[in-house]
Amino acid sequence: MDFQRFDAYVDAHATEYLAKLTGLARIPSIAAEGGPAMDDAAAAVVALCAWAGVQAEQIPTEDGPPIILGRTEDGARSLLIYNHYDVQPPDPLDAWTTPPFEPAVRAGVLYGRGVADNKGNLVARLAAARAYRETLGPLPLRLLFVLEGEEEVGSPHLASFAEAHADLLRGMDGCIWESGYKDEADRQTISLGLKGVLSLELHVRTAASDAHSGNGGLYPNAAWRLVEALSTLRAPDGQVTVDGFLDRVRPPTDREMAMLARIPFDAAAIQRSLGMSGFLGGLTGIAALRRLIFEPTCTINGILGGYTGPGSKTVIPARAMAKLDLRLAPDQTPEIALELVRAHLTRRGFTDVSVIESEGGLMPARSDPGAAIVRAAVAALAEVHGEEPIVFPSAAGSGPMYQLCQAYGIPAVLCGVGWANSRTHAPDESIRVADFVEGIKAMGRIYGRFAQAE
Amino acid sequence: MDFQRFDAYVDAHATEYLAKLTGLARIPSIAAEGGPAMDDAAAAVVALCAWAGVQAEQIPTEDGPPIILGRTEDGARSLLIYNHYDVQPPDPLDAWTTPPFEPAVRAGVLYGRGVADNKGNLVARLAAARAYRETLGPLPLRLLFVLEGEEEVGSPHLASFAEAHADLLRGMDGCIWESGYKDEADRQTISLGLKGVLSLELHVRTAASDAHSGNGGLYPNAAWRLVEALSTLRAPDGQVTVDGFLDRVRPPTDREMAMLARIPFDAAAIQRSLGMSGFLGGLTGIAALRRLIFEPTCTINGILGGYTGPGSKTVIPARAMAKLDLRLAPDQTPEIALELVRAHLTRRGFTDVSVIESEGGLMPARSDPGAAIVRAAVAALAEVHGEEPIVFPSAAGSGPMYQLCQAYGIPAVLCGVGWANSRTHAPDESIRVADFVEGIKAMGRIYGRFAQAE
Repeated sequence: MDFQRFDAYVDAHATEYLAKLTGLARIPSIAAEGGPAMDDAAAAVVALCAWAGVQAEQIPTEDGPPIILGRTEDGARSLLIYNHYDVQPPDPLDAWTTPPFEPAVRAGVLYGRGVADNKGNLVARLAAARAYRETLGPLPLRLLFVLEGEEEVGSPHLASFAEAHADLLRGMDGCIWESGYKDEADRQTISLGLKGVLSLELHVRTAASDAHSGNGGLYPNAAWRLVEALSTLRAPDGQVTVDGFLDRVRPPTDREMAMLARIPFDAAAIQRSLGMSGFLGGLTGIAALRRLIFEPTCTINGILGGYTGPGSKTVIPARAMAKLDLRLAPDQTPEIALELVRAHLTRRGFTDVSVIESEGGLMPARSDPGAAIVRAAVAALAEVHGEEPIVFPSAAGSGPMYQLCQAYGIPAVLCGVGWANSRTHAPDESIRVADFVEGIKAMGRIYGRFAQAE
Repeated sequence: MDFQRFDAYVDAHATEYLAKLTGLARIPSIAAEGGPAMDDAAAAVVALCAWAGVQAEQIPTEDGPPIILGRTEDGARSLLIYNHYDVQPPDPLDAWTTPPFEPAVRAGVLYGRGVADNKGNLVARLAAARAYRETLGPLPLRLLFVLEGEEEVGSPHLASFAEAHADLLRGMDGCIWESGYKDEADRQTISLGLKGVLSLELHVRTAASDAHSGNGGLYPNAAWRLVEALSTLRAPDGQVTVDGFLDRVRPPTDREMAMLARIPFDAAAIQRSLGMSGFLGGLTGIAALRRLIFEPTCTINGILGGYTGPGSKTVIPARAMAKLDLRLAPDQTPEIALELVRAHLTRRGFTDVSVIESEGGLMPARSDPGAAIVRAAVAALAEVHGEEPIVFPSAAGSGPMYQLCQAYGIPAVLCGVGWANSRTHAPDESIRVADFVEGIKAMGRIYGRFAQAE
């Protein structure tokens, strides 16, 4: 195919595409807050679909914003596209250089809440469909857009949506997932999976009320019990030590390990930039990458108990609490992980420690590096950017990929318009305008190449 | 000696003594707040001394309330009496049945902040001196009252006061310390010592800022480091496991162990009343008492790190903190204990954990059960109350006894006018009026008996 006309058209319409994005980014569609902004954003997304020639309908959810289901009808092959129109809360507001919902371009960078996560990608994928039609003719494949409004609050309705549309999903040949980023050296990166996650709270109660610490040698102490329970869950080198937890972890294939070897990874530079003295267990190089990409984790997100104000208070806390997340690798599941943690603690006598799942868990998801959609994405990004993208067998983060893709046999690829300073979930979230335009060009090529791939 | 006249006089003047106490308890001498109430209380204490025939002077401290030094000049033997005129803050105010600084008697119980800790004892000891003179003639021994105004904030000036008055203290033959209580079965209890204490904060810093928990398998986590460090300091059965920490603990003597055997101790009842399932290490009976009375402790008072709000936040905390107190047994010292904790953590590679002493430490103190002041107190209490008091070789709590007494070779006894529901440091602090009067009678006998003891 001749993408010269396509590219020229995209360049000529860059201002229009940017205006579509800033229009959407102006809507404060904060899923955690809900309210009329969610409806406004949903309506704006439906209008963008119409503009792009995508037939869209709002699928209502029971008590949340609608999922937008967009379709095109031409072509034999089918591509699922997943994005979300909701955003993270913008706090702390005073850390933003310009207001989060007043998108502003400075030195070629567009700042605003949601421009990277995930409205920039959503608009780029629709803009690519429109530009394709305007320059190359009818789309060569069927597209199915699933654009939800609750990704930042754990996608509570996506699984039931997927189940209700199982027949539609089973017909999909591949998926372009949410987002992707260029790295510090400006290399394109794509990922072929996500870890699962289980969010837990551990609550300890040892007495009716706090007691005087003179009795500390005799009375149970909730903070000590919590420390003792936690210290059995993970080794200091970062390995999860929950009984049976690692048994289900699928080891990386030779091909996946070979992919790792091609990933540039400067452990010392990361440590320097984050002000840390080293990685857990002294890991470096490929061993560190293997931990990051393939292995499950157990992380204390927060811990609280007893007196934590100024000065000292000689008290034995009766209650203590920790929040944890466990990242899961294929073939772990949140349900089994939860049962393993509970059984592990019960087996060690921690009957005074309650284990509560604090949010719906997510399954791990990983796609075959040989899948057609992977090959199409790699080739498209290489052509636009001038060098091969770096392919991560999986990202270290999590998302609802399994319930929409792997559960229906759909291989999925994460790629998108972000850069190393996108600061998603943080103040001054941004994308570079040039990356946004390049991302539209890349998506057009993905549509073309995936339609033709064997 | 004939204490019938003494007792009759005390009974006849009980209303006057109670009025002296309520007058002092009306002054909100909260050491943590300071202010003019401290001066008012100091002046009131000087006036009470004059009323009791005790020559008193205010010894100024550099930046705190004065220490009142009161003396009588008759007699060969000398008795040191330690009390304090400051009180704990009264919060939470709405938990008081009547206002904390408006002392009120209900059903024979006097309620008010400080009536048990420690103004009731202070007044009882002065009232006993006055009643003795009025009924039995000149006091048979020299009294030295040390009445400070900073006990509830760690007695920061008491050590330097003691050093400045070392010659005076070296001449003392015994000491009646601060306070004492009747137990749940209305038995008199006295104690012959206090544990020392070292208050610590452990601070961990692992990175410049929090990071995304997707990196939890690689990045150091301050909360995990804190859990790992803490878990090396104490065994789940409550034994302190700091390297070398137990080496200096003086084992109880046969006589002290025999004293334990005479202490009524209903572990099950304590556990029931506090809503706990059992003591650490399953200890019961004499083993539990031995732990409580003779062994050092390591207690987490509070712990804090990362995100502890509602919902989940997938973060790796860069900072975490714990507050601890270590109760010390003879012959431990706070200075050596601090060095042992630091060396223990450094030896295990916890160079990212800072150990900070959060308050001046206190030395442990224990008196010889055979000392004359112990025998005099036991006999006096037995005579007044009609049964032998229960003698604890040491209390489980701490106080500045060593720096005023043991450092100068003065054996000391804790006894006083409290009861099992005195609720010191809590709302509705109280003493029974009958215990206050009985305490005055007991002090008169201690003066008499100690003057004559061999």
